[in-house]
Amino acid sequence: MQAMMNNPFYSQEMQGPFQSYPLGDWILEEGGTLRGATLAYATHGKLNKARDNAILIPSWFSGTSKVFEQAYIAKGRALDPSRYFIICVNQLGNGLSSSPHNTPGNGGRGNFPRIRIGDDVRAQHKLITEHFGISYLALVVGGSMGAQQTYEWAVRYPAMVRRAAPIAGTAQNTPHDFLYTESLIDAIKSDPGFKNGWYDSHTEVREGLARHALLWAVMGLSTAFYKQEFWRQLGFSSVDDFRTNLLEAVFTAMDPNNLLCQAWKWQHGDVARHTGGDLKKALGRITAKTFVMPIDEDMFFPPRDCRHEQKMIKSSEFRVLNSICGHLVVTGLDPDFLQQVDQHLKELLAIPV
Amino acid sequence: MQAMMNNPFYSQEMQGPFQSYPLGDWILEEGGTLRGATLAYATHGKLNKARDNAILIPSWFSGTSKVFEQAYIAKGRALDPSRYFIICVNQLGNGLSSSPHNTPGNGGRGNFPRIRIGDDVRAQHKLITEHFGISYLALVVGGSMGAQQTYEWAVRYPAMVRRAAPIAGTAQNTPHDFLYTESLIDAIKSDPGFKNGWYDSHTEVREGLARHALLWAVMGLSTAFYKQEFWRQLGFSSVDDFRTNLLEAVFTAMDPNNLLCQAWKWQHGDVARHTGGDLKKALGRITAKTFVMPIDEDMFFPPRDCRHEQKMIKSSEFRVLNSICGHLVVTGLDPDFLQQVDQHLKELLAIPV
Repeated sequence: MQAMMNNPFYSQEMQGPFQSYPLGDWILEEGGTLRGATLAYATHGKLNKARDNAILIPSWFSGTSKVFEQAYIAKGRALDPSRYFIICVNQLGNGLSSSPHNTPGNGGRGNFPRIRIGDDVRAQHKLITEHFGISYLALVVGGSMGAQQTYEWAVRYPAMVRRAAPIAGTAQNTPHDFLYTESLIDAIKSDPGFKNGWYDSHTEVREGLARHALLWAVMGLSTAFYKQEFWRQLGFSSVDDFRTNLLEAVFTAMDPNNLLCQAWKWQHGDVARHTGGDLKKALGRITAKTFVMPIDEDMFFPPRDCRHEQKMIKSSEFRVLNSICGHLVVTGLDPDFLQQVDQHLKELLAIPV
Repeated sequence: MQAMMNNPFYSQEMQGPFQSYPLGDWILEEGGTLRGATLAYATHGKLNKARDNAILIPSWFSGTSKVFEQAYIAKGRALDPSRYFIICVNQLGNGLSSSPHNTPGNGGRGNFPRIRIGDDVRAQHKLITEHFGISYLALVVGGSMGAQQTYEWAVRYPAMVRRAAPIAGTAQNTPHDFLYTESLIDAIKSDPGFKNGWYDSHTEVREGLARHALLWAVMGLSTAFYKQEFWRQLGFSSVDDFRTNLLEAVFTAMDPNNLLCQAWKWQHGDVARHTGGDLKKALGRITAKTFVMPIDEDMFFPPRDCRHEQKMIKSSEFRVLNSICGHLVVTGLDPDFLQQVDQHLKELLAIPV
């Protein structure tokens, strides 16, 4: 039997504390089965007696419950653990929940099955309803792939989602975004050390992971980010220092198969799967009060693509966020951006539903 | 002695007719020498008796005199060979002028020296003055790297350039653009078949060239190009068909070392080299009537970056071109774009200087 991989990046020491909820054998939309699957999550605050103060936050590509917590959750902010019961959930494949690198046996690593956004949202639904006994969520909010999961929640379980805030993401992935993700996948798979996913350590795929990080440097920020040398504000002394010691450092610590699992899922995100390909009909199901929040400088989820979807959502508003940090600002690079998000989320949470 | 490479893409049959002007041993700004260097060019129309109707058009990355001719030069259009003497010049490294693949001996291929935009413009100056006996140009116009050469002309030889039209390019390359080009370079060099430039045929680097083509698919068009399925207008039946049979087909036919030579040159384009790093001072030298023409959907030469430079040029106007085809529209993908360019160039050429 193939052993699972050891990768300290995904440990409790680095990413904890988090809990693991057992899903049992999780049958996937694409036909595979995750045997003995687990969903990792971290909570902040307490569920009140009315059980109506729960907020769910799914993770973005390569992100974890920890990185979201550090950027967004604090007393006095919109996501305030003294008021809300906040559940940060890790998407399948992200390294904390069931993932290629931590799945033992022949079904892990290079054989890990394909996962859909819907597989995540069904698993999260099970956690929310069966484990926590929650019947509806005050808010689902997430950035990037977290936005994809937010849309999936609002379309799949409309009665359970009172408010939704998809940030920098789409309900139906765009063809351009598909190509960008393809280039990320290609960067990793083309490394001879990748060996169809059967490398012995993620360090053998270092070059592919570094190439993948470079593509994030090109598409994940913005032309203005570099022109204005915003990286100085982040404590870096040059573009190379920023590339090497932030983007490359983070991505080369991760597991290649984990990233590829999430990338495929991202590429194929599409709520119109519920309605035979009819996006308008799918988004028409949403009853949540929804703030669609793109980032003005996002190079692959530009505001116009999000606007296109927002118009199909009945009770929605279009709230553009501004930051020259582009897409990756969701990770918390720009304090001003975080204030904007907080302001919008406070408004959204104040709307009676 | 190492033989030069055979690559039919660069032949007279594919790219001709073109002439080759002997530069002799061309000493380069970075210190190398191109021995027995040649500059390839094609002309259209006739030089008039006053010798004042010459237009110079330098080539873009991977482009040739032929591709420019086919998209832009025709009777009745702005670049009208019945009125002007039009010289389409091929940049060094593009496969028609002296380039890695066609330079015999140990100085070719993987050892081909580094070339600067300034090396091209000096060579073009020699062609214009010594071969054609032209003392000034009615217009220098070029797209992308052709814009870099246009700026270099206007800064280096201000008295010789009466009008300048840099399209979709900058006088000083931006840090974001540098990173994008780095990703293009990386895509090719990471192919094990590249062998530090000493492959025996460009077909051995097919995967790297295909990866390079995918990055053009991501950054070279626009999100709207794919969303609106503009590729249908180009005669393709799907995104894959477009990628495979346009971008990948074109780039995999080219020589990897040639592309890398041009990419390095692109990365390091900077007219401020003439003024100790002072961009304002460099652009202040320009006396040409200049139309700065960015493309609204360009993902790596966005209008704001071009605007920043245009403001430093005395006798200049800012003319934004519109096309959802993004940067690669310069190759002629969108007839409406070509009409816009023609209109602006006609206006520019009508201005007395």
